[in-house]
Amino acid sequence: MSKTLYERLGGADGIARLVDDAVDAHLSNPKVKTRFENTKDIEHAKKMSREFFCAGAGGPETYTGRDMLTTHKGMNISEEEYVAVMDDILGAMTKNKLGADEQKDVLAILYSLKGDIIHV
Amino acid sequence: MSKTLYERLGGADGIARLVDDAVDAHLSNPKVKTRFENTKDIEHAKKMSREFFCAGAGGPETYTGRDMLTTHKGMNISEEEYVAVMDDILGAMTKNKLGADEQKDVLAILYSLKGDIIHV
Amino acid sequence: MSKTLYERLGGADGIARLVDDAVDAHLSNPKVKTRFENTKDIEHAKKMSREFFCAGAGGPETYTGRDMLTTHKGMNISEEEYVAVMDDILGAMTKNKLGADEQKDVLAILYSLKGDIIHV
Amino acid sequence: MSKTLYERLGGADGIARLVDDAVDAHLSNPKVKTRFENTKDIEHAKKMSREFFCAGAGGPETYTGRDMLTTHKGMNISEEEYVAVMDDILGAMTKNKLGADEQKDVLAILYSLKGDIIHV
Repeated sequence: MSKTLYERLGGADGIARLVDDAVDAHLSNPKVKTRFENTKDIEHAKKMSREFFCAGAGGPETYTGRDMLTTHKGMNISEEEYVAVMDDILGAMTKNKLGADEQKDVLAILYSLKGDIIHV
Repeated sequence: MSKTLYERLGGADGIARLVDDAVDAHLSNPKVKTRFENTKDIEHAKKMSREFFCAGAGGPETYTGRDMLTTHKGMNISEEEYVAVMDDILGAMTKNKLGADEQKDVLAILYSLKGDIIHV
Repeated sequence: MSKTLYERLGGADGIARLVDDAVDAHLSNPKVKTRFENTKDIEHAKKMSREFFCAGAGGPETYTGRDMLTTHKGMNISEEEYVAVMDDILGAMTKNKLGADEQKDVLAILYSLKGDIIHV
Repeated sequence: MSKTLYERLGGADGIARLVDDAVDAHLSNPKVKTRFENTKDIEHAKKMSREFFCAGAGGPETYTGRDMLTTHKGMNISEEEYVAVMDDILGAMTKNKLGADEQKDVLAILYSLKGDIIHV
């Protein structure tokens, strides 16, 4: 485990595939799809997600978006939606053949962000 | 009960007081306040609410806003939020000394709108 | 509207049909069916529901069950489940060709019980 | 990380303290306390939790309770309740000075059980 999470996720390319697959999953997940269908610029949202994941996993990219709290402020996101999004991301990891250790690390990061996402 | 609901609610003035009190209640209700705190133009939202209530209660006003479904699309409003908003509105009615028959009528109207509000 | 709600619902027979149809709806409603599938004695639950409805609607029956608060205590019933149950009951009323006034009265009664049902 | 999770959690004694602290937290957590207040035999519930944790973490204990699905069947546990319980457990771990790696492992285990707990 001396490799960074960024490397273990396949770098920028691996993370880009992950974001694409996760967003596709969100768009067909009845618990959150209305949130994403209504996103005005889905390509921008994906770009921000890629940057955020890359930077958070130890990659050289810089995240140019707003902080998590500002991003989710006023959306009144529920625990149900938050869990649905985590499921989609972990499902996308399985689809991309990323292992249990990587999924555990991503789960821990996502869980640590919860306070800036749910009901803020 | 030969009077219209509009008359029984005190006409445009009564409904304006009701909307003010309900929005005040929303802004201090932990279940929905983040939604309303983040509303960019709260005065416009109140104006639309007044028009909607007045028109829906049989008054001469015209509702100039978007239909309910379009208004709530993509917000992923939960049953918990919907019930919180109904409670605030009925509480505002009690505060304004509006009776059980009026509350029953408003409850029935709000309930009939549910399909255009929750998880759309 | 000089008739009691009990009479307008079709008396004990009408209410019994309503309870049967509502419970059938609960058992196929994904939001609450696990609650009802797991009810140990569904016939007893139906009997209690019939008595409660009859007594509450002004009929001569006596409700022999526990009060609403005690009945729901510790179940942590959510707003989502509560709204699902109301939908099933109102749907059963429509199926039994009960009109808008009756539905409004039942809705008002169910709403007034909310504080003894949700998250108690 | 050559030690088992059981050892890293402090063995049977460490896990017993964890369960006590987690249940205390549940009993004062507004999102789930009614579930636990109403548990008929809280000491039995704690015993089962200790056994389950010990066995699941690689300890020599045997879990003598029912499987997770049977245990939660019909309770209609929501994502909100599930997240509240995880927060309480992770909080109890922090209180007991258990580190980030241990919390990550416990989080991963709890998450993997989700399908047998929520809305079953």
